[in-house]
Amino acid sequence: MKVQDIGEFGLIELVAGMVSGSGISGNVILGIGDDAACWHGDAPIELGTTDTLVQDVHFTLDTTTWGELGWRAVAINLSDIAAMGGVPRYALVSLAIPGDTDVESVAELYQGMLELGRRFDVSIVGGDIVSSPLIVIGVTVLGSIKDPDSILTRSGAVSGERIAVTGYLGSSGGGLRMLREGLWFDQETASLLREAHLRPQPRVVEGQALAEAGVRACIDISDGLISDLKKLCQASKVGARIEAERVPIRPLLRSAFPTSYLELALSGGEDYELLFTASEEVVTGLREILSSPVAVIGEIIEDEPGRVAVFDRDGKEIGLDSEGWEHFAQAHK
Amino acid sequence: MKVQDIGEFGLIELVAGMVSGSGISGNVILGIGDDAACWHGDAPIELGTTDTLVQDVHFTLDTTTWGELGWRAVAINLSDIAAMGGVPRYALVSLAIPGDTDVESVAELYQGMLELGRRFDVSIVGGDIVSSPLIVIGVTVLGSIKDPDSILTRSGAVSGERIAVTGYLGSSGGGLRMLREGLWFDQETASLLREAHLRPQPRVVEGQALAEAGVRACIDISDGLISDLKKLCQASKVGARIEAERVPIRPLLRSAFPTSYLELALSGGEDYELLFTASEEVVTGLREILSSPVAVIGEIIEDEPGRVAVFDRDGKEIGLDSEGWEHFAQAHK
Repeated sequence: MKVQDIGEFGLIELVAGMVSGSGISGNVILGIGDDAACWHGDAPIELGTTDTLVQDVHFTLDTTTWGELGWRAVAINLSDIAAMGGVPRYALVSLAIPGDTDVESVAELYQGMLELGRRFDVSIVGGDIVSSPLIVIGVTVLGSIKDPDSILTRSGAVSGERIAVTGYLGSSGGGLRMLREGLWFDQETASLLREAHLRPQPRVVEGQALAEAGVRACIDISDGLISDLKKLCQASKVGARIEAERVPIRPLLRSAFPTSYLELALSGGEDYELLFTASEEVVTGLREILSSPVAVIGEIIEDEPGRVAVFDRDGKEIGLDSEGWEHFAQAHK
Repeated sequence: MKVQDIGEFGLIELVAGMVSGSGISGNVILGIGDDAACWHGDAPIELGTTDTLVQDVHFTLDTTTWGELGWRAVAINLSDIAAMGGVPRYALVSLAIPGDTDVESVAELYQGMLELGRRFDVSIVGGDIVSSPLIVIGVTVLGSIKDPDSILTRSGAVSGERIAVTGYLGSSGGGLRMLREGLWFDQETASLLREAHLRPQPRVVEGQALAEAGVRACIDISDGLISDLKKLCQASKVGARIEAERVPIRPLLRSAFPTSYLELALSGGEDYELLFTASEEVVTGLREILSSPVAVIGEIIEDEPGRVAVFDRDGKEIGLDSEGWEHFAQAHK
């Protein structure tokens, strides 16, 4: 059955059924099916973020399942809420798809979104489904924060603070390269890389823990460690030095990409880990609370705002010729 | 200068500058430039809606200016908030565009959005700009309502109520036909039709007045009078009868389309007027308050849920073979 056979309204009905079957927050007054969604407002501070995935720019159906696509479209938004220290709560989904798309594929897409949504109590409350020659998935996630003083921003970094990251970097970039170039790896490596790229784990719990622990500066790693650290430093009017050796990289990624694992970790992007700054004590305290690893990789220094320098184990500065994904950029030199 | 020359970050900076120059609500803590937007939550009831425009599906640059496109992308969302009786407050804009788009065009697009936003104190607080082979504009608008009992829904219509609409119908459909078919009209007609289609006026003030006057059922006319009335009747489990002669149509539209003005008014869609049900007294009261016209066009009856019958001046039922735009639908018979 194709989307054009059941039409927009049939599709909305299908999606509304799936969404309500998956559980909706008790705060929601009206979900999918009216002109706008409607819920009780009870958050002192509200957060909103939106991210869009375009077919053959951000994903290809050759290597991505519909379920993974749904997961990823929601995950990248949850990661933005996490990077503010917020609690994600509601999602609006805007789906542009060709009329000859299988209805089953759309159902899988929403299953992927709902699966991730359930993990963090995020309800899909509304959206839009339109016809389009190529697939474009836009997700808006709304979240909340109790205390205005606990918001994590890009501008809160202070000279002398440690620079830390959650999890491991580069695996998503490695996954992308594997999928794009059709590289062969053993099953464990292949599934780790695929999972890292297509089913990233937004650090929602970690973001809230950072905020509670008194961290003030944070950004999620979407464009790449160096690129995102530059943005944080620019906003905070500071510089940064990174020790390449301390960047957390999975041994499997090192083995799979022995000559390029460091580049993947520095500039691969789409890891959706949290990059933040804090005192050594705060980082130590966080390590005791969090189940995901936290690594100190460098420090914030007084320097030209936005300047990021990376040093190797011999203390030699590494030249950076690739600074991470920038949309529209034609060359990265 | 092309978008790919200044890159995503250059473009975000440009947009952020335009947005902050246009005025942002004092409630906003962080606008464009961090991982998520952030504002003080102070609404008992919150509303969220999202709508997407796809190039060559919902618009073509052959007949639409970038400024009109921006206006329309925001207007269709404000109209959804209006149809709930809400106050629109914040917008998130997701823009997918080719890298060879002129930067000036993107600036015009945002000018169109900001122009309409200023009229209703709606602040653009965030968004996303990505590369795409075709233009896709997704706008999410968040709004608020004070009293949960005053929400206008599709399910609130009751048998015996009058069916009323604001403004005039069919002009937007006439505008679309004029632009698509390259029809020639005198300047007054041409500019009225163009304006109706490309710069619709969302009935934000009217929606709030309806809610305050005690109206309970409302929908905005996006797909067409009959199609949207059917949705309202389905949700309310009632039927409707419409007197074609009472449907408000501009004399200029009648002259421009002497054989099809009624079809345009019944099924043309995209008028973004409000269709609502209320007692005769409430409608009379609203006429005194509102500056836009309000016409009673029929009544809600007990009938098969969702059945809408249209009668001509002789009391003869008009056969409906076109029920308004449904995305993906291949045929309308």
